[in-house]
Amino acid sequence: MLDTLTQRRSIRKYKNQDIEQELLNEILKAGTRASTTGNMQVYSIVVTRDEKKKEELSPCHFNQPMIKNAPVTLTFCADFNRFNRWCMQRNAEPGYDNFLSFMTAAIDALLVAQTVCIAAEAKGLGICYLGTVTYTADKIIDVLNLPKGVVPVATVTLGYSDEEPEQVDRLPLEAVVHNESYNDFTEDSINQLYKNKESLAENKAFVEENGKETLAQVFTDVRYKKADNEHFSKVLLDVLKKQGFLE
Amino acid sequence: MLDTLTQRRSIRKYKNQDIEQELLNEILKAGTRASTTGNMQVYSIVVTRDEKKKEELSPCHFNQPMIKNAPVTLTFCADFNRFNRWCMQRNAEPGYDNFLSFMTAAIDALLVAQTVCIAAEAKGLGICYLGTVTYTADKIIDVLNLPKGVVPVATVTLGYSDEEPEQVDRLPLEAVVHNESYNDFTEDSINQLYKNKESLAENKAFVEENGKETLAQVFTDVRYKKADNEHFSKVLLDVLKKQGFLE
Repeated sequence: MLDTLTQRRSIRKYKNQDIEQELLNEILKAGTRASTTGNMQVYSIVVTRDEKKKEELSPCHFNQPMIKNAPVTLTFCADFNRFNRWCMQRNAEPGYDNFLSFMTAAIDALLVAQTVCIAAEAKGLGICYLGTVTYTADKIIDVLNLPKGVVPVATVTLGYSDEEPEQVDRLPLEAVVHNESYNDFTEDSINQLYKNKESLAENKAFVEENGKETLAQVFTDVRYKKADNEHFSKVLLDVLKKQGFLE
Repeated sequence: MLDTLTQRRSIRKYKNQDIEQELLNEILKAGTRASTTGNMQVYSIVVTRDEKKKEELSPCHFNQPMIKNAPVTLTFCADFNRFNRWCMQRNAEPGYDNFLSFMTAAIDALLVAQTVCIAAEAKGLGICYLGTVTYTADKIIDVLNLPKGVVPVATVTLGYSDEEPEQVDRLPLEAVVHNESYNDFTEDSINQLYKNKESLAENKAFVEENGKETLAQVFTDVRYKKADNEHFSKVLLDVLKKQGFLE
C-alpha cells in the first residue's frame, strides 16, 4: 500500500479515456474522510469535465496542456459560504470573515485535495497539481462562479496516464526533517544536501537551456521571479479581501 | 486499499508504545513523494519525541492531552529558509519574502502532512491533527526555534491507537461537490444537506451540553468565536510579518 505513495509520479499526459462518474464519486468520497477543523468541512470541490469550461479555465492555468488534455479537472476551494449560510439559517452569527478562517478553510481544502489525489492514484489514475491556481484565483473565481467566502487553493488534473515519466529527484530526508528543534543549516550542510540534485543530468541540462550559471538561478531568475511573486501576492490578497476574508 | 482512506478515524488516545525510528523514517520518506511547487520542497517537519519538548509544546496546543500522550508529534512548516540559503550560496537572489510565497510553502507543507498521515495510517498507526497550530504559531516558533522564513501550519500527533472511536459523520457528497460551476445553496438545500448531521444523537447532546438552541450556535458561540478568530488572525498575520512573508 505504501507503494502507491512511494512509487508515484505526477502525470501530465492522459489517455483519451473518460473517468466513470461512479469511480470519480468513490474517489471524492474517500477525500471527504480527511480530517477537517471541527468537522466543519469548510471546503468545496468544483469538477470540470465540460469542453467549454476547460476552454475558459485553460488561460487561468497559463494554457498548460493538462487542462484540455485531462478528462477531469478538480478545483479545491477554501469555502465558508455553505457553513455561513447554515449558521445564518440556524440563528447563529458566523464570525469567519477573517484571515484565520481563510487559513482554516484552506487547510481543510488542501488535506482533502491530497486525499483525493492519493485515492485517485490508488485507483490507477494519474494526477498533476497546477501551481497556477494561486496566481489567478481572481479569474478562476469568475470562471467557476465562486461566491463570497470561497477561494480556490488547489487545482488538480486527473486521468488515465499516457506516459511513463521517470520519478523526479527529492532532497534527502535530512534536508526536511528536524529532530526536537530546528537545526539550522550551515554552508557545508546546504552544499551536501543539494549535491545530488545539482549533479543530475536533467538539472544540469535545465541550467544550460536557460543560460544560467546555477540551478538556483533558474528558480530565482526564470521560474519563480521576485517581481511575479510580488504581483501575484497583491492579486491574492485582493482576492481574500473581495471574498470576505480580510474584514 | 481505499479502505485505509474510507475507514479511517482520528485517534486521540495512544498506547504507551514507541514508534521505531525506521518506521517513522519510512513514513516521512513516503511523505516527501508528495507534489510540491516546482519540486522546491519548501517545507520542513519537526519531530517531537522528547518529554521536555512535549511539556513545552503542550500549552501551545491548549494542553490537549494528545501531545503528551502520543509518542511522536510532527509539526509541518512552510519553509523558505533552506531554499533561500541555497539560492544565496549559488549567486541567486531569492524573491520569496511575500504572501504568495508563504501560500506556496504552506501548500507544500500541507500536502506533505496529509501524505505522511495516510502513510502512517497505512502502517497501522493512528493520527490526529491539532487545529491549534494556526492560533499559536508565534509560541511554536519559539519552542521549536524556527528561523525567519519558517511558519508552522499543521501539527499531527502519531501513535498506536488505544481506542476504537466510532467514525464521525460527514456531509453528503453533494454538499461539497459542484459540477462545472458553483451551484449556490438555497434555504431548502441547506436544510436538506444538514438534516442528517443535526439529527444525530451525539450532535443533539452537544447542543444540550452547551446550552444552545442549534448545533450551528455551538460553533459560532462556543467553539470558533468571532472574537477569538479576529484575535488569532492578528497574531497569525504578525507571525507572517515577523517571519518575513509580508515584505
